[in-house]
Amino acid sequence: MEAHSQALPHIVVVGAGFAGLTFVREFPPELAVITMIDAQNHHLFQPLLYQVATAGLAAIDIAQPVRGVFGARPNLRVVMSRVSRIDLGARRVHHERGELDYDYLILAAGATTGYFGNSDWEKCAPGLKSLDDALRIRRRILCALERAETESDPAKRASAMTIVVVGGGPTGVELAGAFAELTHTVLHRDFDHIDPKQVKVLLIQGGSRVLPAFPEELSASAQRQLERLGVEVRTGLRVESIRDGELTAGGETLRADNIIWAAGVTAVPLARTLGVELDRGGRVKVLPDLSVPGHPEVFALGDIAAITDVNGVVVPGVAQGAIQMGRHVARLLVRELRGEKLAPVGREPFAYKDKGSMATIGRSAAVAEIGRMKLTGYPAWLAWLAVHLLFLAGFRSKLFVLLQWVYSYFTYRRGARIITGTSGESSAGSA
Amino acid sequence: MEAHSQALPHIVVVGAGFAGLTFVREFPPELAVITMIDAQNHHLFQPLLYQVATAGLAAIDIAQPVRGVFGARPNLRVVMSRVSRIDLGARRVHHERGELDYDYLILAAGATTGYFGNSDWEKCAPGLKSLDDALRIRRRILCALERAETESDPAKRASAMTIVVVGGGPTGVELAGAFAELTHTVLHRDFDHIDPKQVKVLLIQGGSRVLPAFPEELSASAQRQLERLGVEVRTGLRVESIRDGELTAGGETLRADNIIWAAGVTAVPLARTLGVELDRGGRVKVLPDLSVPGHPEVFALGDIAAITDVNGVVVPGVAQGAIQMGRHVARLLVRELRGEKLAPVGREPFAYKDKGSMATIGRSAAVAEIGRMKLTGYPAWLAWLAVHLLFLAGFRSKLFVLLQWVYSYFTYRRGARIITGTSGESSAGSA
Repeated sequence: MEAHSQALPHIVVVGAGFAGLTFVREFPPELAVITMIDAQNHHLFQPLLYQVATAGLAAIDIAQPVRGVFGARPNLRVVMSRVSRIDLGARRVHHERGELDYDYLILAAGATTGYFGNSDWEKCAPGLKSLDDALRIRRRILCALERAETESDPAKRASAMTIVVVGGGPTGVELAGAFAELTHTVLHRDFDHIDPKQVKVLLIQGGSRVLPAFPEELSASAQRQLERLGVEVRTGLRVESIRDGELTAGGETLRADNIIWAAGVTAVPLARTLGVELDRGGRVKVLPDLSVPGHPEVFALGDIAAITDVNGVVVPGVAQGAIQMGRHVARLLVRELRGEKLAPVGREPFAYKDKGSMATIGRSAAVAEIGRMKLTGYPAWLAWLAVHLLFLAGFRSKLFVLLQWVYSYFTYRRGARIITGTSGESSAGSA
Repeated sequence: MEAHSQALPHIVVVGAGFAGLTFVREFPPELAVITMIDAQNHHLFQPLLYQVATAGLAAIDIAQPVRGVFGARPNLRVVMSRVSRIDLGARRVHHERGELDYDYLILAAGATTGYFGNSDWEKCAPGLKSLDDALRIRRRILCALERAETESDPAKRASAMTIVVVGGGPTGVELAGAFAELTHTVLHRDFDHIDPKQVKVLLIQGGSRVLPAFPEELSASAQRQLERLGVEVRTGLRVESIRDGELTAGGETLRADNIIWAAGVTAVPLARTLGVELDRGGRVKVLPDLSVPGHPEVFALGDIAAITDVNGVVVPGVAQGAIQMGRHVARLLVRELRGEKLAPVGREPFAYKDKGSMATIGRSAAVAEIGRMKLTGYPAWLAWLAVHLLFLAGFRSKLFVLLQWVYSYFTYRRGARIITGTSGESSAGSA
């Protein structure tokens, strides 16, 4: 609780992801005092998180300290603390180190891995939403190969050399492709007793095709490209249970030391503390202007918001959606604070502009849909590379990521395959 | 236990540090089968470890996967496993996943942080010997500043903003200088409620001057350079006790959330399983040829060995010493295996060649002694930079480290200040 020494309104932004960061970037510093709060001290470039999990990039290549993003911007305060609950009536945010009163609230706390009610699967099949997740997955898989190298029991060795990715959306496809590349091409000469080319990478998809949000021909192409890399793609297979090192799907039981869950996300539990209506995914059902019903001073943005936009488009949980929402709300609030419009009457509804979708599968392998254009293989990969490098703008790491990629491309070696953290399955991160 | 399909002798190398790595590099692949075993999967460039702890470099910038170092070298096997004990009589190495019989043993397992019998200090004052140590220190300090930012109790805030480095050797000097730079220049605009320039960095040295192994004039210069960076140097102050967030030295009690121990190392506990004579630092007292008394087939190299060389020089525990020992033993064994000499008669004694010592203090601040030449300030720093970049040869990261430094130099921002791992004091690593 602190007094701000001016009559400026106080905006609290919960979450330093794409939505929250864009809002702050687009909002003029002189119009309000902003407090940005996040449990992490960094903004994460989520689209490349799978590269950290598969030893392609270092953690810091895709993370940027929140305090560093805005430099000496006036009227901005950054708090690293976990928000525990929000009291919409009292206009107060409670966090683990205190509380914050707000005039406006930007709720952009994102999503977390969702297990459809099977929360006990989490321990055996980690998801990929944070840097710690990525580092844990990387450590687990590298350690499993080390175990395989000295294991004399063939069944145990086979299990250590099996990677199962559950979920055929973009994250699952990207992970499976990158694991296949890592084991089959990067590490293939590194071991003596095992042949990493024999590592089995399985991609399990409940639906009838991978990348269901893409056109059918791109799904088919993605599957072919995955198979060319050595991934075994199993569609129409629903997971029934996951135990430690064991997965049952379609009545069949698979032994695998490495099971990764990429089959779903759900809004962060914080949404449930609001006392407003949520959708099945735990997301806040917002009004067309992205405000929370009954609370014109509260906006939900990004993955925590459920919205069908003014044109009837269900806004997907991707970086573009979050960025556009951040921009939209910044614009709305600026107008209101300048007295141009009165909330909530006549607020402009949010309209999502689909800039296309892409998924990368491996070196020179990807699919992309940009407007009416459908790309596969090398051209799709080049498009993906260009877009992601452009988006990394502002990161110290743009240059480094580019160099790292160019280096990897020509040498097929990966520098990030360092195991840190106690070599077991502890829950903390690594490098 | 495995049969090797040839009459070649089997050499087991314990430890992938400078000594072990140099031995393997210098040893011709056709003369013996080598098994290299290490609990970590990476070789660590220890001289730059303090840069990871102070958010200057990423963990992977200074680590290299052991399996990647030698590529497809024949007759080499790498095992990632912790060695638990060595049976010199049976010529057998026991590790957590099995055992290895050897014809020759190269014991290069290094050193660990030593607390002079006060092992309970370890929890409150971590040392700096591994990547996990460095990442833990980095996380602790960054988290302490985040706590300070929201802390209203002045005493608690002051404690969160105090960093005490115990030990005025090169590691302590480098850490203290880098912490001062990080807080006083890099982070100084990042916070709203606290001023990182107010962070108190204390360097405590039991002896009468810092860098006691250097000439007196360089010690004096180092202290001046540290003080210019804002480090408070306290010499002649012996630590009496360390509790959580509290340190007593010279009868005075200091409150500090961040206490780093850089006051001593001791050989790894493995040395004690040998049943041979050790020195006060737990190191193996080797013969002039670096072999273990009574066991001409066993050599101790690097920080695990205690030796006064043939010229009466006590070999210091630095990378150069380890590298020269690795080279010496490789040369000895090659001759013996080729039948040129018979062990242990007439083996050439080890002679250490001092190539100079350096310690860096900060940006453009260092001291160096090379032969009769004594450098301080900018020239010393340039020399330090050149030597360290040369030594990084073979690392993927040479180029990246260089770019990172150039970037930091011109921008004074650091990309590595990312907090990963559960934000508390857990014992596992981060990024």
